[in-house]
Amino acid sequence: MDRSTSPASRRQFLRRAGLGTALAAVVGPAAAFPLSSTEPAMQHADQKKIGFAIVGLGKFATEQMMPAFKETRHARIVALVSGSPDKAARLAREYDVEARNIYTYQNFDTIRDNPEVDVVYVVLPPALHAEYTERAARAGKHVLSEKPMAPTVAECQRMIAACQQAGKKLMIAYRAQYEPFNLEAIARIRRGELGKLLQITADHGRIVDPVGDKADTWRVVRKMAGGGSLMDIGIYSLNAARYLTGEEPTEVTAQEMTDKSDPRFKEVEDRIHFTLRFPGGTLATCTSAYSIQQVKRFRAFGSQAWLDLDPATDYDRHRMTIGDKDGQHEPPLKEGNQFAAELDHMAECVLQNKTPKTPGEEGLRDIRLIQAIYEAARTGKAVKV
Amino acid sequence: MDRSTSPASRRQFLRRAGLGTALAAVVGPAAAFPLSSTEPAMQHADQKKIGFAIVGLGKFATEQMMPAFKETRHARIVALVSGSPDKAARLAREYDVEARNIYTYQNFDTIRDNPEVDVVYVVLPPALHAEYTERAARAGKHVLSEKPMAPTVAECQRMIAACQQAGKKLMIAYRAQYEPFNLEAIARIRRGELGKLLQITADHGRIVDPVGDKADTWRVVRKMAGGGSLMDIGIYSLNAARYLTGEEPTEVTAQEMTDKSDPRFKEVEDRIHFTLRFPGGTLATCTSAYSIQQVKRFRAFGSQAWLDLDPATDYDRHRMTIGDKDGQHEPPLKEGNQFAAELDHMAECVLQNKTPKTPGEEGLRDIRLIQAIYEAARTGKAVKV
Repeated sequence: MDRSTSPASRRQFLRRAGLGTALAAVVGPAAAFPLSSTEPAMQHADQKKIGFAIVGLGKFATEQMMPAFKETRHARIVALVSGSPDKAARLAREYDVEARNIYTYQNFDTIRDNPEVDVVYVVLPPALHAEYTERAARAGKHVLSEKPMAPTVAECQRMIAACQQAGKKLMIAYRAQYEPFNLEAIARIRRGELGKLLQITADHGRIVDPVGDKADTWRVVRKMAGGGSLMDIGIYSLNAARYLTGEEPTEVTAQEMTDKSDPRFKEVEDRIHFTLRFPGGTLATCTSAYSIQQVKRFRAFGSQAWLDLDPATDYDRHRMTIGDKDGQHEPPLKEGNQFAAELDHMAECVLQNKTPKTPGEEGLRDIRLIQAIYEAARTGKAVKV
Repeated sequence: MDRSTSPASRRQFLRRAGLGTALAAVVGPAAAFPLSSTEPAMQHADQKKIGFAIVGLGKFATEQMMPAFKETRHARIVALVSGSPDKAARLAREYDVEARNIYTYQNFDTIRDNPEVDVVYVVLPPALHAEYTERAARAGKHVLSEKPMAPTVAECQRMIAACQQAGKKLMIAYRAQYEPFNLEAIARIRRGELGKLLQITADHGRIVDPVGDKADTWRVVRKMAGGGSLMDIGIYSLNAARYLTGEEPTEVTAQEMTDKSDPRFKEVEDRIHFTLRFPGGTLATCTSAYSIQQVKRFRAFGSQAWLDLDPATDYDRHRMTIGDKDGQHEPPLKEGNQFAAELDHMAECVLQNKTPKTPGEEGLRDIRLIQAIYEAARTGKAVKV
């Protein structure tokens, strides 16, 4: 039963889903009836799924995120937006997307007329996030945007405003915040299992290879990426420091090390190290790099124990180690599909009219901090934030 | 055959050992004959051992270092210096030290009259290193001093000058520089196995417990320790950054996080994070802490691979992991007794008239940097060094 083919079942779905009048505006007057917020959100989770349009069919989208839809409970791919008709057609076949639901960047705005699309997932280079978020919101769609949210604070603010004005959800795809090992780390810290949280070290790096890997081409172009390793991968160190402490830092310092004779780093930074002081007394020391072999790890040090994730923010094969006065051990944890959990969260926020756990404001906070880190690196001075 | 009982054999030993006239001055005119530097240093390694006097019989000396003498080839304990007669007598029995070779801090200077003692190993709190090094040198003894070398640059310089004037060796006990996993890490980096060395993270911390552990009492007293965690354990992060790069840093930055309401940290710092910029382009980011569960690790990131030691600078159970584009692996390395290697190196330097690999100048460099790190933390500014 596809709600796009049956207005009656669609209305029934909306009623069951507890959606408000905002979404009703999208599907037309027939659906514009009041819905009680106390109605159960989803009586049968498998009956209906929120439709996602994927904007940008790059390596990350096609290799990591799109396959995860197969493991979601509430999310499905209903539309594709691409500048490459062949690739779009191939993926449409693979994901059972109807040919009429393939869009180009030129006709993207007509997506407003497609009631199958509930959420637009923007998987473009950062410099395009604001534009496509605003266009999606104007088309009456909820938005899930990849991180970094956008290169500048002003763009982030425009994205938030656009979705607010349209009455639409805005979520930033901080996948690590939906990943089981990271959630377990946060839970253990909140329960006080490490004692007082005193120190965090977080290191994220990889080799950026714009010549050998087409997916990296835009990453070294400032006007597309907005910055270098910090925007792209160091943001995991930054975001982890924030979700592990559950606090906002008050001061940042930074040192940059970029070999400007390396053609990759003409426009964007390579290595940047930064520290974050948190009001509760935690100091986070973070690294970000585009020239070292892959590392994605953090360790949280408490007064009683430390907790290590290495890798912490990979796609899979996470490993947690706890160290305390009795030695070290690795709690048995089950790997889970972080992308599926993230997509289901977005779908549930739409279905249940909830604010996403990682809303636009979360993305904006990181961008403010990233700009402060750049300033600290440039000036050599601690920057209050 | 104990050289203390036979002047003839002692002279023979000196001749075999290739010792110069400096040592001859200690044992009297009978030994003052020219020795050819081309003579083999030790024809039979087990024939003679260099005699060490251990100054300070604390937990580290008695539990870690002294037992290691059983595994040395060229070093033996011949004298003890302690303020505790009972403890000294007990240890003298355990290590076959003759009762007449037990000294107090008061009669320590009479050690000049004891030809069995070649090396004085100063295992006292840092504030006493200069005094006992100078007294030992004046007594005509070579000196091995624990690290940190001394709280101040001026004291380090006095220690170097005193040993130079006496024509005696001065070595600082940087045990990690004699530890097989660390040596293997250095060798791999020098051979270029990581590619270009770009980043080092080094974290050292432990819980200082002056109430529960008598060995920690002096560590929180500034006039004994000279500083807090940085002097005591952060120095491992600092020294590792230097021996892994093989360079001297040009700039340091630092942030301190110390809870002054914690009675342990009335006088000395708890947590301090520092960065070191090296001329070859490596950035080292280091932590030091007295309030977190034990960590002693570093990771060196190159353009081709990273190398991790965790623990890196423990007494045993070291672990090396290499990460490169093909994944991670742990090279099979054999644990070795770093203390025995260190003691044998000191003995060999005496026997072969060599400059120690970790001379006073090495200790002085770290103390200069530690003072610069303190300045950077205090002022919030990068300090050129």
